Amino acid sequence: MSFLALRRLFSQVKRHHLEFLAPSNQHGCKYRMISDAVSFTQRSHTCGSLCKDNVGQKVKLCGWLQYNRGTQFSVLRDWTGITQIFTTSKQKEFQDLMKSIKHESVLCVVGKVKSRPDKDINPNMATGEIEVEVEEIEVLSQAEPLPFPVSEFYKISERIRMEYRYLDIRSKQMQRNLRIRSKMIMKMREFLANKHEFVDVETPTLFRRTPGGAKEFVVPTQHHGKFYSLPQSPQQFKQLLMVGGIDRYFQIARCYRDEGAKPDRQPEFTQLDIEMSFVEREGVIQLIEEMLQYSWPEDCTQIVTPFPHITYEQAMRLYGTDKPDTRFNMKIQDITSSCKDCGVTLIDDKLQKDNGNVVAIKVSDTQRILSKKCVEDLKTDALKALGDIKTVVIPIRVLDDGSWQSPISKHLSDHVRINISNDLDLQPGDLVLIAAGQNYSTYEVLGKLRLFIADYLESKDIQVREKDVFNFLWVTDFPLFLPKEGGEGLESAHHPFTDVHPDDRHFLDTHPEKVRGLHYDLVLNGSEVGGGSIRIHHSHLQKYILEQILKVDISELEHLLKAFTLGCPPHGGIALGLDRLFAMICGTPSIRDVIAFPKSHDGKDPMSKAPATVSQCELDTYHIQVKPQQSS
Amino acid sequence: MSFLALRRLFSQVKRHHLEFLAPSNQHGCKYRMISDAVSFTQRSHTCGSLCKDNVGQKVKLCGWLQYNRGTQFSVLRDWTGITQIFTTSKQKEFQDLMKSIKHESVLCVVGKVKSRPDKDINPNMATGEIEVEVEEIEVLSQAEPLPFPVSEFYKISERIRMEYRYLDIRSKQMQRNLRIRSKMIMKMREFLANKHEFVDVETPTLFRRTPGGAKEFVVPTQHHGKFYSLPQSPQQFKQLLMVGGIDRYFQIARCYRDEGAKPDRQPEFTQLDIEMSFVEREGVIQLIEEMLQYSWPEDCTQIVTPFPHITYEQAMRLYGTDKPDTRFNMKIQDITSSCKDCGVTLIDDKLQKDNGNVVAIKVSDTQRILSKKCVEDLKTDALKALGDIKTVVIPIRVLDDGSWQSPISKHLSDHVRINISNDLDLQPGDLVLIAAGQNYSTYEVLGKLRLFIADYLESKDIQVREKDVFNFLWVTDFPLFLPKEGGEGLESAHHPFTDVHPDDRHFLDTHPEKVRGLHYDLVLNGSEVGGGSIRIHHSHLQKYILEQILKVDISELEHLLKAFTLGCPPHGGIALGLDRLFAMICGTPSIRDVIAFPKSHDGKDPMSKAPATVSQCELDTYHIQVKPQQSS
Repeated sequence: MSFLALRRLFSQVKRHHLEFLAPSNQHGCKYRMISDAVSFTQRSHTCGSLCKDNVGQKVKLCGWLQYNRGTQFSVLRDWTGITQIFTTSKQKEFQDLMKSIKHESVLCVVGKVKSRPDKDINPNMATGEIEVEVEEIEVLSQAEPLPFPVSEFYKISERIRMEYRYLDIRSKQMQRNLRIRSKMIMKMREFLANKHEFVDVETPTLFRRTPGGAKEFVVPTQHHGKFYSLPQSPQQFKQLLMVGGIDRYFQIARCYRDEGAKPDRQPEFTQLDIEMSFVEREGVIQLIEEMLQYSWPEDCTQIVTPFPHITYEQAMRLYGTDKPDTRFNMKIQDITSSCKDCGVTLIDDKLQKDNGNVVAIKVSDTQRILSKKCVEDLKTDALKALGDIKTVVIPIRVLDDGSWQSPISKHLSDHVRINISNDLDLQPGDLVLIAAGQNYSTYEVLGKLRLFIADYLESKDIQVREKDVFNFLWVTDFPLFLPKEGGEGLESAHHPFTDVHPDDRHFLDTHPEKVRGLHYDLVLNGSEVGGGSIRIHHSHLQKYILEQILKVDISELEHLLKAFTLGCPPHGGIALGLDRLFAMICGTPSIRDVIAFPKSHDGKDPMSKAPATVSQCELDTYHIQVKPQQSS
Repeated sequence: MSFLALRRLFSQVKRHHLEFLAPSNQHGCKYRMISDAVSFTQRSHTCGSLCKDNVGQKVKLCGWLQYNRGTQFSVLRDWTGITQIFTTSKQKEFQDLMKSIKHESVLCVVGKVKSRPDKDINPNMATGEIEVEVEEIEVLSQAEPLPFPVSEFYKISERIRMEYRYLDIRSKQMQRNLRIRSKMIMKMREFLANKHEFVDVETPTLFRRTPGGAKEFVVPTQHHGKFYSLPQSPQQFKQLLMVGGIDRYFQIARCYRDEGAKPDRQPEFTQLDIEMSFVEREGVIQLIEEMLQYSWPEDCTQIVTPFPHITYEQAMRLYGTDKPDTRFNMKIQDITSSCKDCGVTLIDDKLQKDNGNVVAIKVSDTQRILSKKCVEDLKTDALKALGDIKTVVIPIRVLDDGSWQSPISKHLSDHVRINISNDLDLQPGDLVLIAAGQNYSTYEVLGKLRLFIADYLESKDIQVREKDVFNFLWVTDFPLFLPKEGGEGLESAHHPFTDVHPDDRHFLDTHPEKVRGLHYDLVLNGSEVGGGSIRIHHSHLQKYILEQILKVDISELEHLLKAFTLGCPPHGGIALGLDRLFAMICGTPSIRDVIAFPKSHDGKDPMSKAPATVSQCELDTYHIQVKPQQSS
């Protein structure tokens, strides 16, 4: 039947706008959608939208055959839901047809909506009050036997899910995830472009290699020996747009990073990239808070603004990490002064060194579950994860009679014991872990142990973290430079374009390692979901930091340094990692569940078999050849 | 002054929402914007927004120093416009400061809005009734002398514009173009996502090489000898999404095509990519028409729907091209039957061959401008542009007395002359161009000449095309296959996934060259701005066309063929080339004027000097090396 004939046929059917409640996820997210989901198509309605109001209407439904029930009944599915269709005993040819086709075949059914007899009403089904009496059936696509039943796809190994991704996407979970993602991005755009006059600018992804861009993919060109690079972010372009007077920029930007085989990273990923002129840190922070609130899915636990702030130093001292999970307490406490000259050699030795310290966390009421062996294992894991071979971790258990069970208890004087006990407000049943060592390493070890213990307890069904909350947190006042990993000198903690904290400018020449930057990170439930900074907008300062402090070759950044000399507004911005954010909102542990066609952890696509070999003839266009494989 | 202090300072200033009319382009495009352009920043207002209503208010403006007028007056600019600021004779330090800084320096000015004295009111300036009396000035960025004045940047060579793109972007033209682009894309998204329940899905750009993907950039990976490819469109992914039950998909997709040095092409470009399930051709066409109407800039000449349709055959026979410019007439007419045995050997020879024909176009009242020499030159250019060495083109001029001036006139009988004259309704003063040859080549030559003549006449200030109109046109019923360029066999006219026209299915085995496809092109003023098709959704038909007709290796498409066997809905879609569309809407001849950071015609970026060399050490990661340059 042609489109126009169909339009005529259904002209008498009032096209109801769809008002559909998508299935809720584990956080109870759902969207109320009021828009037309069948316009321009052959369908008159979707499979999830029919109800009592439609009884008596002639409808045309298209969808996948979910299953047959007996000879008379079948269930048709699309992303909005399912509808039961039925044939009368006189319609033998339809019944034979339905019997002959496989699940997941695609059908077009024309029929009349009928009320179900009272006894057959299904209150658990959105369309459970009606069914459709078939008048015509067209098999649009015959399905062959499936590798696996679609409804059970989530039980299958991820590799198989990825190989048959198009089947996986039919699952309720993937439909929900991809649609939540699309809706929320749209709301972010509305907030930025329509409400706050941001300009959506598409920046190039074929760019030149940037200094230190070791993780950038290269793209050979037809110019001999010349390569584009796929940038890790539009950082330079967005700063140049500020110089160009596009004073409020945003982009949902595709970015690239070649990290080989890192789990839960993708070679291409998406960030919401934002930059503004004439803004200070608090302006960017307020913008992001209002935007998240505006775009947050209606039926998720709502978020409260303003988000709390914490400095880098506070975060390290309380949580042993710069991305604290604040859904539970168990904070780190400094007990150095109580441990001075305590008589335990292990501890005393540490305290004699520069910046030696002793810190502790307390786990209440869990001695029964956290056995001696278990604590020992978690401790080993934490030290191993950090590559820490110096920090000493010692457990103390407070027994019912108030006495301590610990390798060190016999060495401690009552005085020291009482001081520690007071510091930590110890009660019978408490387990304490103390770490002795230098600098932040003690904090980092306990920070890691804090998370491992929480995970362990939750694996034993003891709730540690608050449920269904989204704890956002701003972390500020990061150091601007860090000692270069495995080498002399300093490197940028984030990137070389972050401006100097105004209170620390006097340190720049003499103690650059003491300088804090105007960087801010956005942390959600212990994961970093965004980061940004106020940028340097003076050419001479940018040059000084690049050349004198970071010792990098500035020839690759000359265009940027030049731009800063021709009228550059002060500016700052931020980027949010959308894959991680949506994974958390959708309540799934893997970012692959919110990406339509992700790569596996080794950067391969099991469906299309990318990456693939390319003939030398094709490589000749790009003047390159593959090097022989080393046998070593 | 800190952000918070500023908020306090301006808490008494009511933040007016900006209602700004951007400068109109040559088509009279402008946008009315009602949104907050200063929220979250240090500014209280933009430079183009102050008027009589603000008199008496304390304001804070940030912008670029446009120029000084005398010692007292300066003009501050941002993208919304300009505001005059003034200093009193007592403010000598401010006057000295303003004198000392260069144009395009960035300033922050705090002051009070005053009415201008009547004699100083500038009715040509949006803010011409007011000026701001300075209380504080902060120089945010001192500009060094500019390579060129920003206001005259459009006069500079494109290469220099691109080298200093950040200055070029400050120009009115680029600000307007980038903002129109951002706004219109946002409206398209609203139409699709909010009004019609389309899902915005991001598909990978790191993919595998596709059959015939000769223009795909390759990206080496850390897997030895394995490459990703940057796809020319998300074609496969969008079809797989249909199989996956995402029944309405769209994406503003970055696409890649390595065409070496083609003018007005970019190695990366943007398309609006759309796909729908359960749709026929008319559904896609109606969707696009409604979407364009919804998103069209308010102050452009409005477009009228439905757009006219023309078949490929009609387009070729009337305009000699599959993308007719319908802004002017001068259609091609077939005069073959009048020319039978006309006695002109050149013509008679052609007519004796298969599909020999004679066609003509008529140009009225332009003999004076289209001299003999000029017509000869245009004719040569047209034949050359097509690489046509066989078609014969002959001019005829109808003189005032009705007689013909033409190389062939003496060979023609009165009978033939009268027939041709009747066919073309010739009048004194008309110029006729006739082409004799085979098949469509005569049409193509006259189609080219038609455009060249129009361009030439317009270069002489004779209006040929209707002004300020947007003539959209659908071209349909294309052949599905074309003879392979420079080889035996057939290739797809568009791509191998286009479905067969239902009326031609019987030809598929016997005369595939006669089969039309369900492809449709969207043409605007003679340029193709979009194309799409209803797709094949049956695995066996897709396989037959790939293997039996196109003779391609299907191993690279096995995942797609497999997907079609597991329940594939009928589907179709379209892609609009946004760069070209926005160039036409913005009234600029080059797509580079609607792209923030374009590449030059040879794929280079004069600003960052991309592409660039990469060290062998970095290439080692990817197991490749550059081949020695051939001396030949």
